[in-house]
Amino acid sequence: MSKAFKVKDQHIQNLGNIVGGSKSILYHKEDLMAYDCDGFTLHKHLPKAVVFPKDTKEVSELVKYCSTHHLPFLARGAGTGLSGGAIPLNGEVIISLVRMKRLLSVDLENRRAVVEPGFVNLKLTNSISDKGYYYAPDPSSQYCCTIGGNVAENAGGAHCLKYGVTTNHILGLEVVLPDGEIIEIGQYGIPDSPGYDLLGLLTGSEGTLGIVTKITVRILKNPEAKQTVLAYFDRIEDGSQAVSDIISNGIVPAALEMMDKIAIEGVEAAAFPVGHTKDIEALLLIEVDGISEGIDEQINQILAVCKSRNVREVKVAVDEQERGRWWANRKTGFGAMGAISPDYLVQDGVIPRSKLPEVLNKINQVSIEFGLRIANIFHAGDGNLHPLVLFDARKPGETEKALKAGSACLQVCADAGGTITGEHGVGIEKREEMRFVFNDDEIVSQTNIRDVFNPNNLLNAGKLFPSPGRCVEIKQELKEKTSSPII
Amino acid sequence: MSKAFKVKDQHIQNLGNIVGGSKSILYHKEDLMAYDCDGFTLHKHLPKAVVFPKDTKEVSELVKYCSTHHLPFLARGAGTGLSGGAIPLNGEVIISLVRMKRLLSVDLENRRAVVEPGFVNLKLTNSISDKGYYYAPDPSSQYCCTIGGNVAENAGGAHCLKYGVTTNHILGLEVVLPDGEIIEIGQYGIPDSPGYDLLGLLTGSEGTLGIVTKITVRILKNPEAKQTVLAYFDRIEDGSQAVSDIISNGIVPAALEMMDKIAIEGVEAAAFPVGHTKDIEALLLIEVDGISEGIDEQINQILAVCKSRNVREVKVAVDEQERGRWWANRKTGFGAMGAISPDYLVQDGVIPRSKLPEVLNKINQVSIEFGLRIANIFHAGDGNLHPLVLFDARKPGETEKALKAGSACLQVCADAGGTITGEHGVGIEKREEMRFVFNDDEIVSQTNIRDVFNPNNLLNAGKLFPSPGRCVEIKQELKEKTSSPII
Repeated sequence: MSKAFKVKDQHIQNLGNIVGGSKSILYHKEDLMAYDCDGFTLHKHLPKAVVFPKDTKEVSELVKYCSTHHLPFLARGAGTGLSGGAIPLNGEVIISLVRMKRLLSVDLENRRAVVEPGFVNLKLTNSISDKGYYYAPDPSSQYCCTIGGNVAENAGGAHCLKYGVTTNHILGLEVVLPDGEIIEIGQYGIPDSPGYDLLGLLTGSEGTLGIVTKITVRILKNPEAKQTVLAYFDRIEDGSQAVSDIISNGIVPAALEMMDKIAIEGVEAAAFPVGHTKDIEALLLIEVDGISEGIDEQINQILAVCKSRNVREVKVAVDEQERGRWWANRKTGFGAMGAISPDYLVQDGVIPRSKLPEVLNKINQVSIEFGLRIANIFHAGDGNLHPLVLFDARKPGETEKALKAGSACLQVCADAGGTITGEHGVGIEKREEMRFVFNDDEIVSQTNIRDVFNPNNLLNAGKLFPSPGRCVEIKQELKEKTSSPII
Repeated sequence: MSKAFKVKDQHIQNLGNIVGGSKSILYHKEDLMAYDCDGFTLHKHLPKAVVFPKDTKEVSELVKYCSTHHLPFLARGAGTGLSGGAIPLNGEVIISLVRMKRLLSVDLENRRAVVEPGFVNLKLTNSISDKGYYYAPDPSSQYCCTIGGNVAENAGGAHCLKYGVTTNHILGLEVVLPDGEIIEIGQYGIPDSPGYDLLGLLTGSEGTLGIVTKITVRILKNPEAKQTVLAYFDRIEDGSQAVSDIISNGIVPAALEMMDKIAIEGVEAAAFPVGHTKDIEALLLIEVDGISEGIDEQINQILAVCKSRNVREVKVAVDEQERGRWWANRKTGFGAMGAISPDYLVQDGVIPRSKLPEVLNKINQVSIEFGLRIANIFHAGDGNLHPLVLFDARKPGETEKALKAGSACLQVCADAGGTITGEHGVGIEKREEMRFVFNDDEIVSQTNIRDVFNPNNLLNAGKLFPSPGRCVEIKQELKEKTSSPII
């Protein structure tokens, strides 16, 4: 413990002492400003302090302290979340998990690894790839996001079409509950744990039910072979129909991604241009993997489908380098929009795959109605859309207009029998849009569960659910913030 | 409504009126006796009545009535559950869902079907197989069990190694909550619904949180090809090691089943003998499926693995008929034990795959210790064991001894880092064994959730969780019932 650590605020002093002194706590305003938002930057709120525990015991003690003294608190990973789940709306004590970043064990025979929550997603694959294994969930931020954050948001990724989202890869969790108690759930996970599925309940609960301090994940054997196809379509309807046809043929691609015309313009103007044909309406990036023998057959079927749907050009990646270039172009796609627009807002909706052409049409109407361009880069195979609303925050009122357009896109998804998030979570961003898909009874069923875990609502309050009182405040805040930059 | 329906008991009268009169309610003792237990026959309790609603509205009205009048109630499907989940411990009103048995819709393009809870599992596959689709979860009782029951128990099956258990195939539920309110959850299910994962929570909650009245399931395209291998091993360790090797080779078989010597003796003595070599210690039944091209390569790898593990004989099914015979022999395996033992008790534990030889050894020690033979027929690929304790209920005290031996097998699984149920549920049978894997805090986390949904504990009380008060009672009951037959 640092002897020099002495501050006026008794809570800061005590919290600091739990984590070993001044090196493990931030409380000066200039330090706290780095923690006033996450990947969703429309709300900025200063935390009371940021503490950096080194183990579960310290997390538990911090939580007990906050709980006893009625201090609001929340957990934070890398802060890459896109819906505002780690923003301290109520001056929370932020419990940062970045120091708890060890890979605790790898059990190749039983296909499991145990990690601390601050362990970075991609590092897991990097740690086991020489032995022929990998960790499947691959959000675009995987080079920096943490697995703890992935659990909170039930993160997806391009390959979740075949391999499922985070919840399908979590076998066990150690969790600090909001009263500081430590529980282990679903340690073994396969195939059907006794009792209620707390593992599923905690995964994707956006940091509102507990703080995950240890995670047992499933790891997979590298596929023997992988092939990637790029297809250009003159008409978006043909591209959409090709998506349906591929799946109907019984092929489950590892990934099936789509970009529309504006998105292609963006990624070609930005850091990793591939040299896509620009006068097309849609491109598909399709990857299949598995044992070597079946792959060619699947690729041939995919090529045949594309041709039957009037593809202008279709090609198979000739080597790993070309494949890597295509993927880099896709994975940096959101950021690339910065090359063609001062600001953009990412949305995240889900629709039944068969409604793709109809929904893209309606999103186009939203674009016309609001006078804002909307690009689409998305996981077409599982109907997970990402409309990117392009706007200029410097123009008065345009941020608000962009938010409304984003919300209108979600309404289109909900009306098509879909839902309002596929992988980014609800957080602050989509609290009100929860009403597009849940009635009051259904929301109360969920807040009742939160109350069981988190009876005083000290943990990450104000997230995930609409609350009439707060909604008014938020609208107010948004009005005040229309000039904030959005990244 | 039947005019003639007039009974003294006002509750029976009123409940009958809700479902349209005397044809839809049973209340005479001789009728109720058919409902005093389910597939777990060690507890027998008469319900107050059995009602047969025809739609969600009637279910909701029945539940409201029971709730208002503090009558305990529970839902029942086909009654094939193996852990006692549908047994009316407290003189419940049984809400039978067998009349709600319609296939409501099939959407091939989006790979979904909507069924009522009383729809029989296998009928779904039969209804869509001509179009090239099927429903994956395949419990051995699939020819008669209902999909509603499958949801309650999160049922598995031989093919859950590759395709997952029921929860992986449920996209949406309509649920009548214990106060009669009707909610819809996870209507779209892909890939990550907003809010808490109520869909996962309800699935496998063993009828303690609500009554499912409509189910949206995922349907799959039939695999293009399928091949099945049968392998005989002189030593069980070699068979176990072959299981590990197959998975380590990156093959994910559709099914990977194992039977030991006593199990083989049983199935060969019963209805569908295959002519298995009897002096072996273990057989493996291995199925791979997928597109045609990859299959032979996988089969060759499997054959090579078996040979490297000293297989005595290994063969590939020559046609669908032979394949069907091998599967019938496996799927009727539990019942077949009746051919070599007056009674048997099925257990259901899960272990890490790598512990297979060690755990089978310890189960053998349990067998020696209790002086009862134990056969093993199980899903080796996912470490889901089914020890079958053979006994003779006519011998005084032997039923109790069998129960203790079954419990000891579960303790072995828990000690090996596994758990106490893979697919049969906890029900009445394994309430006490929940303590092998959960501490008090972890159990309370779960009962707290039950209390949110089911605050008066009128719905299926006394199931799933250990309760000190009731445990004493149950031991008492068991003593009184040691002469009951077990099927």
